[in-house]
Amino acid sequence: MTLRVGVIGGGQLARMMIPAAVNLGIELSVFAETAGESASLAVTTVGDFRDVADVLAFARTVDVITFDHEHVPQAVLGALVDAGIAVRPGPDALLYAQDKLLMRERLSQLGLPVPDWARIENEAQLAEFIADHGGRAVVKTATGGYDGKGVRVVRAAAEASDWLELGHPLLAEELVQFRRELAQSVARRPSGEVACWPVVESIQRDGVCAEVIAPAPSSRGRLADVAEEIARSVAENLGVTGVLAVELFETTDERLLINELAMRPHNTGHWTIDGSTTNQFEQHLRAVLDLPLGATGCRDRWSVMVNILGGPESGGLHERYGIAFADEPAVKVHDYGKTPRAGRKVGHVTAGGDDLDQVVFQARAAAEHFQH
Amino acid sequence: MTLRVGVIGGGQLARMMIPAAVNLGIELSVFAETAGESASLAVTTVGDFRDVADVLAFARTVDVITFDHEHVPQAVLGALVDAGIAVRPGPDALLYAQDKLLMRERLSQLGLPVPDWARIENEAQLAEFIADHGGRAVVKTATGGYDGKGVRVVRAAAEASDWLELGHPLLAEELVQFRRELAQSVARRPSGEVACWPVVESIQRDGVCAEVIAPAPSSRGRLADVAEEIARSVAENLGVTGVLAVELFETTDERLLINELAMRPHNTGHWTIDGSTTNQFEQHLRAVLDLPLGATGCRDRWSVMVNILGGPESGGLHERYGIAFADEPAVKVHDYGKTPRAGRKVGHVTAGGDDLDQVVFQARAAAEHFQH
Repeated sequence: MTLRVGVIGGGQLARMMIPAAVNLGIELSVFAETAGESASLAVTTVGDFRDVADVLAFARTVDVITFDHEHVPQAVLGALVDAGIAVRPGPDALLYAQDKLLMRERLSQLGLPVPDWARIENEAQLAEFIADHGGRAVVKTATGGYDGKGVRVVRAAAEASDWLELGHPLLAEELVQFRRELAQSVARRPSGEVACWPVVESIQRDGVCAEVIAPAPSSRGRLADVAEEIARSVAENLGVTGVLAVELFETTDERLLINELAMRPHNTGHWTIDGSTTNQFEQHLRAVLDLPLGATGCRDRWSVMVNILGGPESGGLHERYGIAFADEPAVKVHDYGKTPRAGRKVGHVTAGGDDLDQVVFQARAAAEHFQH
Repeated sequence: MTLRVGVIGGGQLARMMIPAAVNLGIELSVFAETAGESASLAVTTVGDFRDVADVLAFARTVDVITFDHEHVPQAVLGALVDAGIAVRPGPDALLYAQDKLLMRERLSQLGLPVPDWARIENEAQLAEFIADHGGRAVVKTATGGYDGKGVRVVRAAAEASDWLELGHPLLAEELVQFRRELAQSVARRPSGEVACWPVVESIQRDGVCAEVIAPAPSSRGRLADVAEEIARSVAENLGVTGVLAVELFETTDERLLINELAMRPHNTGHWTIDGSTTNQFEQHLRAVLDLPLGATGCRDRWSVMVNILGGPESGGLHERYGIAFADEPAVKVHDYGKTPRAGRKVGHVTAGGDDLDQVVFQARAAAEHFQH
């Protein structure tokens, strides 16, 4: 017998669990929507994650169920728990990653720092919120958004009327004046142990994570402590198991506000594969198996990750390996095995070293070889 | 289309190529003798590596053939080359890893430093060699030995009579008075580029590699330069492609002598997975695909690898993860997915850091959790 982890979803997050699973001798099984997905090497079952019977049959072949994404319906999750299956993170925690209104309500109850927000059910409520917040608001659908989708900055209530007509309440938030975006990843195991990586800076373009600098420049001390305290508090109070990423705004008046939660390995933690003693994928597997967590120190003074968005028009990343490897022999390249398409995350690169300017240059230069 | 590498042999070396292949989006296929081997996640074909038709059929599905072991017969290798298949390393190079007599002859021709040796076809020749070398000799079968098997220290020719009766010439070598054993790994790609890791110290027990310290203590300067020059010369003169490990004796009179050659990733290079910017498995894949080689710098001042030999009597390594991970959160554990058996290499651990004594202690303490 060996340790068996089942992952719902076959994207790049499941794929990047494979090396960690191979190293630790963990049998990783993936339940994917189609056979040709990123994690295809480990895909054992193709099926619909909304189908209780399919997911249950898969779950019975493993010791614990975890996730590549947060879209599995609560009804399916509940059925797994009712059947005695270990689900990590559990439905009660995942709820807050699935529904942004519930997340905002809960974090506010806990006294955690969040932007001003309101539940919006009609245009009058939204108009009032906009008037109270300098004539602008960020409007979000409560469920289903990702990578900038389901998010809109509006100056008038009518700009969200199409979403309101769908009949679901929306989340309105103040448009935060932020200096930069940060992200704090932590891992928590069911028996309570928590481990934190350093807080990182995340640079977004068009609502998509483009670059990550680890640790966030000038974060040592108060900023790092507050970020860690926030993420630890979220993990403990929401009962999160596995990896949790908390996306944060650092405001122009030096506060940290919680932007989004992801209860799984996250793009802002990909630097850990090459930059930390224990990477987020190994840590996630340890955490969901309730094994002691690994050390989270940095392997380099600075690590910089740059996403490869779109990729070469003509084919796979490997077509550029000759020139990219020759130019940047120390940069680590990660290919997600996806067909290139405009704006799609098809891979990332990570560079590390002592001089931040040089590390940023190396990572960008390497990534540039794979664009267009 | 993607890059496709086929590996003959499904042991732990093939297994440890999987993470590198996943990262780079390389499709790794493994031709294994049985279905349940270490590299089972990537096994696509089960067959006999001595069967030309089986191996040819497998080879036609990939871009390049490489190896987990050196046992594929020259007749099979020749048939692959005749069929136009890229085989790396090629048969002409592999010959010297397969036959120790040919290896000694060739290295001597090249003027490379080797122990005194002789080709032995009868007891009289062996008796003369023993008499000329202080009353002792190391006798080796020319082919088939590994991990101390096929090697004997003798004081009388009769002690090798059983091997001589088999009708194959033997290799006799002086019993080298060595201070320690070293190993120098390099990678070479077909277009000529060579990259070297630092020379390491290898501590053997009962003819099996037990521990590796990287870099070898007190090796900086002349020793490192000579080791690198020897390995580079072997790789270039023998036309090796992929990773080459040269096992060396450092003699009590401060010479380096070549002990053995391995033309594949090697146990003395496992530290690179956690300790070098480019590990030997990624470098091997780059080299056999004729891609530019990666940087080979050390991630830590010291890396120490300790083999897990035998493993827990009761089952897999994971049964000890609870205590081992809690005690040594910074040590990286590698499980080969093999059934524990006395003396069998079932995994290894690697620790890294600035203080060699502490790193050795950590690695040994972690490995100890998995023994007995």
